[in-house]
Amino acid sequence: MKENMKISNAVIRRMPRYRRYLSELQRKGIGKISSGEFSRLIGYTASQIRQDFNNFGGFGQQGYGYNVSALHNEISAILGLDKEYKMVVAGVGNLGQAIINYTNFYKSGFAVKGIFDINPKIIGKRINDIEITDSKYLEKYVRDKKIDIGIICTTQDSAQEVADKMSAAGIKGIWNFAPVDITVPGSVALENVHLSDSLHSLAYHIKEREDS
Amino acid sequence: MKENMKISNAVIRRMPRYRRYLSELQRKGIGKISSGEFSRLIGYTASQIRQDFNNFGGFGQQGYGYNVSALHNEISAILGLDKEYKMVVAGVGNLGQAIINYTNFYKSGFAVKGIFDINPKIIGKRINDIEITDSKYLEKYVRDKKIDIGIICTTQDSAQEVADKMSAAGIKGIWNFAPVDITVPGSVALENVHLSDSLHSLAYHIKEREDS
Repeated sequence: MKENMKISNAVIRRMPRYRRYLSELQRKGIGKISSGEFSRLIGYTASQIRQDFNNFGGFGQQGYGYNVSALHNEISAILGLDKEYKMVVAGVGNLGQAIINYTNFYKSGFAVKGIFDINPKIIGKRINDIEITDSKYLEKYVRDKKIDIGIICTTQDSAQEVADKMSAAGIKGIWNFAPVDITVPGSVALENVHLSDSLHSLAYHIKEREDS
Repeated sequence: MKENMKISNAVIRRMPRYRRYLSELQRKGIGKISSGEFSRLIGYTASQIRQDFNNFGGFGQQGYGYNVSALHNEISAILGLDKEYKMVVAGVGNLGQAIINYTNFYKSGFAVKGIFDINPKIIGKRINDIEITDSKYLEKYVRDKKIDIGIICTTQDSAQEVADKMSAAGIKGIWNFAPVDITVPGSVALENVHLSDSLHSLAYHIKEREDS
């Protein structure tokens, strides 16, 4: 990667998508793909793809195309997927449970180590053999176990407080599913997933089709 | 709304966010907000907000600000949230169950009416008092019950086939959670939620902070 060059967020958002398509090609046993085929498959122009990859030094081989598994590995390394991330989940409602069970993440290097909730009725129960712990121990756990990622699945009222605790304990990134935007220090990476925003966009696009 | 004017997807993507902040203001009992305060709160410039709203005729009151609940209602109507959507869920793994249970959607006019899976071990069981039905009846159900939205929580291998069935049965929109991009006819609205893309972006931003 070029030193001291900040890569735009739009490029970063496309990288997981490239990787996903490359995983799919690998799964189908396809070893090589031309830049034209890859462009048609993923729906970006070949020039866009080349520009994106040039941010990282470029991976293409002119007149030959891409080696699927080599490119997959390079993108994985760029995304930081070549190591293991330790995660905690705060808030064990339905979505929290789904995230914990979403074993997909385990396979790809993301492991839930601790689960926290404030509800005395579920504290002490186990999900995937991990005991649900009282949220009052969250900060200490994150600090002691050097947890990388905190997943917030609490209500909107608790989300900011939980994020503050995680940040104070040295968490590196927060994946927020609570239906509220939270703020974190600049040293903490943040991804918000607002499922209802996505559903509401869908509703708009349905309405737009009905109106036209 | 101005007739025959296609509103850009970027604007549409911001509307649910405006609405979410307005809901939050309502919840806090705030009736009026100046355009400057709203801008600081939501993190868009006042000019951006004005431009966005101008796409729909503009809602602002110069020198007075916004009436929170009126604006909330107008945006809700624009998004098509002033009616009820009937939904089905295909694929009852952990994520499918979470979506079904995510009662938030019920409150906001989205109701899961049918649940489908191919696994004989769970067909006949009930979630939220809705019986899990054999996927072979999916197409007929969508057609007979005039279902609006199909939620795909299947594996990546089944997702396209399920989308094809839903589309053939006249579904209006598909909300896809399967980790694969699906294609649908132009008459069907589509929103993909790729949770792993979001997690991988987070990993990148963590790595970026560690490298700097």
